Amino acid sequence: MKRVSYTELHQELVRVLLKLGFEKEKAALSARLFAEASRDGVDSHGLNRFPRFVAYIQKGYVRVDQEAVPAKQMGALEQWDGHLGPGNLNAWTCMNRAIELAGKHGIGLVALRNTNHWMRGGAYGWQAAEAGMIGLCWTNTIPNMPAWGAKEAVLGNNPLIIGFPKAEGHIVLDTAMTQFSFGKIESYRRAGKLLPVAGGFDTAGHITHDPAEIEKSGRALPFGFWKGSGLSLLLDLLASSLSEGLSTTQIGQQCEDEYGLSQVFIAIDGMNMGAKAHYEKMLSDTLLAMETATPAAPGEKANYPGERTLRTREENERLGIPVDEAYWAEIKAM
Amino acid sequence: MKRVSYTELHQELVRVLLKLGFEKEKAALSARLFAEASRDGVDSHGLNRFPRFVAYIQKGYVRVDQEAVPAKQMGALEQWDGHLGPGNLNAWTCMNRAIELAGKHGIGLVALRNTNHWMRGGAYGWQAAEAGMIGLCWTNTIPNMPAWGAKEAVLGNNPLIIGFPKAEGHIVLDTAMTQFSFGKIESYRRAGKLLPVAGGFDTAGHITHDPAEIEKSGRALPFGFWKGSGLSLLLDLLASSLSEGLSTTQIGQQCEDEYGLSQVFIAIDGMNMGAKAHYEKMLSDTLLAMETATPAAPGEKANYPGERTLRTREENERLGIPVDEAYWAEIKAM
Repeated sequence: MKRVSYTELHQELVRVLLKLGFEKEKAALSARLFAEASRDGVDSHGLNRFPRFVAYIQKGYVRVDQEAVPAKQMGALEQWDGHLGPGNLNAWTCMNRAIELAGKHGIGLVALRNTNHWMRGGAYGWQAAEAGMIGLCWTNTIPNMPAWGAKEAVLGNNPLIIGFPKAEGHIVLDTAMTQFSFGKIESYRRAGKLLPVAGGFDTAGHITHDPAEIEKSGRALPFGFWKGSGLSLLLDLLASSLSEGLSTTQIGQQCEDEYGLSQVFIAIDGMNMGAKAHYEKMLSDTLLAMETATPAAPGEKANYPGERTLRTREENERLGIPVDEAYWAEIKAM
Repeated sequence: MKRVSYTELHQELVRVLLKLGFEKEKAALSARLFAEASRDGVDSHGLNRFPRFVAYIQKGYVRVDQEAVPAKQMGALEQWDGHLGPGNLNAWTCMNRAIELAGKHGIGLVALRNTNHWMRGGAYGWQAAEAGMIGLCWTNTIPNMPAWGAKEAVLGNNPLIIGFPKAEGHIVLDTAMTQFSFGKIESYRRAGKLLPVAGGFDTAGHITHDPAEIEKSGRALPFGFWKGSGLSLLLDLLASSLSEGLSTTQIGQQCEDEYGLSQVFIAIDGMNMGAKAHYEKMLSDTLLAMETATPAAPGEKANYPGERTLRTREENERLGIPVDEAYWAEIKAM
């Protein structure tokens, strides 16, 4: 497996972004978000996603010269317009603004419309947690998941992120509404593996573990069947109503490609209420119970979300970041 | 099947609550929340739950003479102490306060500690939606769900509610972190039915559809396997840190019974940003796509959360509310 250093990966992505017309600071931040995704083991939204990001710029969906700007304000609640700027930069800007609002009001919510794929959603959970705050955010997507009870994909897989600050490395949930994200399904297919639990339907409508069959049908299984289906709808309605942006259905009416998304960013400054001793005891009691629980099977363990990320990050910082050679060559040639 | 009118059910519950020492207004509201749960088809948290609620008052877990009061305030973010008052009244008070805060700041969050089981969580989603606001709320519980990868129940099933206002009847998601709530598992067992999808583990550690086996092992399956497990942990950490209350682990350390819970209530006044035309078109486009999607199998349909509630409500208002005769007799004799 080829590995490259974080610095080399970052510099290479910056080079390409500058060539595409990004301002210097924006190129640095966008490249950082891509490189950090790969460093943390989320290749599907790091290096491996970068060529499609570039293609979307070339197709005009992602506008390098645009950025998110405020549209409406109501106390701790704001609406921003992304003007189809790069999705990861828009998301970063809006979580930053939610953090500022939370610093002032205790909680802040920024709803963003006309934006693009934010790449690794977990990044914005980490961002809030690094600021010592709780962060919640979610995005809608193009229709890519059948509603429970129906055949066509009328819902999005609408990833939901919750970040919770912790001294030795934050707890960050990053979960799409499908049992597996399409990035993950692709990774399994490329690795020639079956999914560990059922992940979708084949073209005949039967539930299957085969990633290639799910890619063919386009019918990924909502996590928890009707539960993930319902949650997906609500996240979409909240994001598109609060931002006055497009809903998943409306995104799907534009064309086959995914752009013009709606997102929500919430930050909560709860750690600041003078409850440090309570917070530390509560967290250590809770994580100890998970740590010491009897494994369901030998070798298994109850992990908190983000726990494995820290191990992957440490390993990749030490040994270099694994890169898919085909994607890496493609980027080097850009 | 025995049916009683809403008025008869409500009056009977008020009678018992007054006898237990509730003030008149509080008895009326608490009885209303129980009766509305049964009217909407959620028997497990309506009439069928009432005897256990009474038992918890008699055991001293639920304190009839106590109520939620503010503890700390930081702009749009507040902390309240429930003083172990009746859980449904405390929850109602705190969602009301979140709605007030949202009216002022655009968004409001109330974190509540030392409270009790809120009965039907969906009630507080309806409450926010009736006020024209988006409502999100969740509660932690006693440990009753194994973390993914472990045997013991170290997590709670921590129901999450999202209410979204809609003119002809609100969209309200009310979902426990288990694939099935224990109330639902009990209903299937009492009806002598198997669960439609796998719902937990038997005492030998195998995944099963049999409700009685799951009740024996106490190991319900998190919805979406590791996904519901992770979401449950985060909801618990948010509720207990923001409220300075007990986490699921700490609730389990008290005793076998469930009391002293932590909850979060969020209201968002997003409909008020002058976006009525956008909201109506977005909602009708989205619901139309679900309405017209090809059924997965003949007779199936993509429903939005809360859609079936409206049909049940209408039927029960017309014909009377079905009551379990044993529970009804028990309450009549109180």
